[in-house]
Amino acid sequence: MTNLSLLILPGDGIGPEVMAEVRKIIDWYGTKRGVTFDVTEDLVGGCAYDKYGTPLHDDTMAKAQAVDAVLLGAVGGPKYDNLDFSVKPERGLLRLRKEMDLFANLRPAQCFDALADFSSLKKDVVAGLDIMIVRELTSGIYFGEPRGIFKEGNERVGINTQRYTESEIERVARAAFELARKRGNKVCSMEKANVMESGILWREVVTEVHAKDYADVELSHMYADAGAMQLCRWPKQFDVIVTDNLFGDLLSDAAAMLTGSLGMLPSASLGAPMASGRPKALYEPVHGSAPDIAGQGKANPIACVLSFAMALRYSFDMGAEADRVEKAVEKVLADGLRTADLLGEEGVTPVSTGEMGDAIVAAL
Amino acid sequence: MTNLSLLILPGDGIGPEVMAEVRKIIDWYGTKRGVTFDVTEDLVGGCAYDKYGTPLHDDTMAKAQAVDAVLLGAVGGPKYDNLDFSVKPERGLLRLRKEMDLFANLRPAQCFDALADFSSLKKDVVAGLDIMIVRELTSGIYFGEPRGIFKEGNERVGINTQRYTESEIERVARAAFELARKRGNKVCSMEKANVMESGILWREVVTEVHAKDYADVELSHMYADAGAMQLCRWPKQFDVIVTDNLFGDLLSDAAAMLTGSLGMLPSASLGAPMASGRPKALYEPVHGSAPDIAGQGKANPIACVLSFAMALRYSFDMGAEADRVEKAVEKVLADGLRTADLLGEEGVTPVSTGEMGDAIVAAL
Ligand SMILES: CC(C)[C@H](C(=O)O)[C@@H](O)C(=O)O
Ligand SMILES: CC(C)[C@H](C(=O)O)[C@@H](O)C(=O)O
Repeated sequence: MTNLSLLILPGDGIGPEVMAEVRKIIDWYGTKRGVTFDVTEDLVGGCAYDKYGTPLHDDTMAKAQAVDAVLLGAVGGPKYDNLDFSVKPERGLLRLRKEMDLFANLRPAQCFDALADFSSLKKDVVAGLDIMIVRELTSGIYFGEPRGIFKEGNERVGINTQRYTESEIERVARAAFELARKRGNKVCSMEKANVMESGILWREVVTEVHAKDYADVELSHMYADAGAMQLCRWPKQFDVIVTDNLFGDLLSDAAAMLTGSLGMLPSASLGAPMASGRPKALYEPVHGSAPDIAGQGKANPIACVLSFAMALRYSFDMGAEADRVEKAVEKVLADGLRTADLLGEEGVTPVSTGEMGDAIVAAL
Repeated sequence: MTNLSLLILPGDGIGPEVMAEVRKIIDWYGTKRGVTFDVTEDLVGGCAYDKYGTPLHDDTMAKAQAVDAVLLGAVGGPKYDNLDFSVKPERGLLRLRKEMDLFANLRPAQCFDALADFSSLKKDVVAGLDIMIVRELTSGIYFGEPRGIFKEGNERVGINTQRYTESEIERVARAAFELARKRGNKVCSMEKANVMESGILWREVVTEVHAKDYADVELSHMYADAGAMQLCRWPKQFDVIVTDNLFGDLLSDAAAMLTGSLGMLPSASLGAPMASGRPKALYEPVHGSAPDIAGQGKANPIACVLSFAMALRYSFDMGAEADRVEKAVEKVLADGLRTADLLGEEGVTPVSTGEMGDAIVAAL
């Protein structure tokens, strides 16, 4: 069997803690199932800045380009808040996304049965919820030029540019339609075509791609503000949502929070196929670095574990193994184990980050 | 007493219906209280396009500049979806905002006691909620140049520009701090300073204005994606939120929906003081034109009525009269009257748009 290469970038805050639990699962695969991953570990974000003066060293970037998949914990923290923009922890993550050309960010917003009571939304609004947000990840206002803070007359002006080409829109739309076919066969595309020309082009291209190759999928369009509303009102109306980088950032965070399962949600960022046929890929939890609870054994490792499960599914063609990991997670939750973020109900058993990881391994 | 001049622009969809109920209240003021408004009515949006080929006639624009306050219903509808960008109904509204220089859009997100059960959020999360979103309304990506769809090599590219000057940020920050002093004395400013330079400038200017003139107000900063999350998780942590035009569009819509009171929420868009000392002002409900229910007597006129109450307060210095209108609304809700959007509870009395307006007038 060819080696499966994996670059692990634990990052900052709770990143290293949650990643340590994934390492237990990787070890389990090696010793119990004879599936060996060729794992390299490296720095990204604030910890890379501390060591190298840059949030992503060129060597790390080269490694990321060479491996089958990258697994990232989280980046950022108050310690780095006043750094110059160009070396902020986030730049490391954004460089990975951009140079690996990971244009399709898959963010499932799923409500776990055992946690339906935990949402701020009413139980019937979220129970059983399972939607997938496909966010464009390598273009738009995150990367458009010109950008910066300039002097204009007596004052400064802050400028960023939203910029989408037809082909950038087309490839992420295709990713969304392909996914929808494997799910509920519905795509809702969101933009602000009523006020932004880039939104008009977005809507046109999505409509064309649909008519040409995906007419079997149900397509609708919604303004992003109405989309934010509808996600809060009745999220179950959606199956797959496709949207741009900035709207995707806000909408997917809102959707994740609504499920009550924020510490549980993984994500996959996928690019074009490599020579191996596997897509370029980076997997990371949706939650951030949570510096306020870092190092206290309070972090929930499940989002990171499920991100590894996504890697099994999308990078390593090991769908059955991905199912196994997901079932193990469901089992420990059904058994009542809860990390600190999920306490509050009666009759559950509080566990630390490490105990949660051990329990998942035991359930495998 | 000098005449109080009011330009009424009912607009499209349910706009005319809800505005008709406000007219009843204006009439009541004339006949019962001797407070006469000098009312002019005109067209905006799709109906203006139908008549004049433009969503806002220059004459209407001139009237809006001359009056003490403008009251708008709603614009837009599927009939106009395929119009050229430059004559879409929304352009009429955007022109009013821009040419009247209405830079501070005040959007209260309030949960009415009688309706707390109606939210998709749990009752304890929203009961008693009262936050104010101050959205910058005349700049940012809504108006920045360059913008458009351009040909580049073989393909088209859609471009919009986010652009904020220091003075644009400063004046809306001041508006937010002033408001906070009359409320809970807390401001949370939201941007994406971690990925956008315009967000860095935003955070800097807000911080400076605060240090210089509003150190008594509690100020915090949040990334807009985290803000979307926190609004869904525990909105009561906020008092005043200040944010840019595009983030404000999404965040205020999400917040409005969370309250369960969307058909109830008014807004004020304020500019600089005129010669009279009154600010330039436009008032409008947060809800849209809802073409699907237009003309059926199903629309809830309360958001429009409360927008008129905001006009009494902010434009006409009639705070006590604004209270009177707001109390009348509370009374009819407490009496169990509900338009179609608010049905679902036991023991309430369904009423039409017109019956709701009549009941409010009776309660005055
Ligand atoms: C950390 C930050 C740069 C990032 C983003 O804005 O994309 C994060 O919010 C996310 O959604 O992955
Ligand atoms: C109608 C539209 C142009 C408008 C906007 O995007 O500002 C609306 O959504 C709003 O929030 O007032």
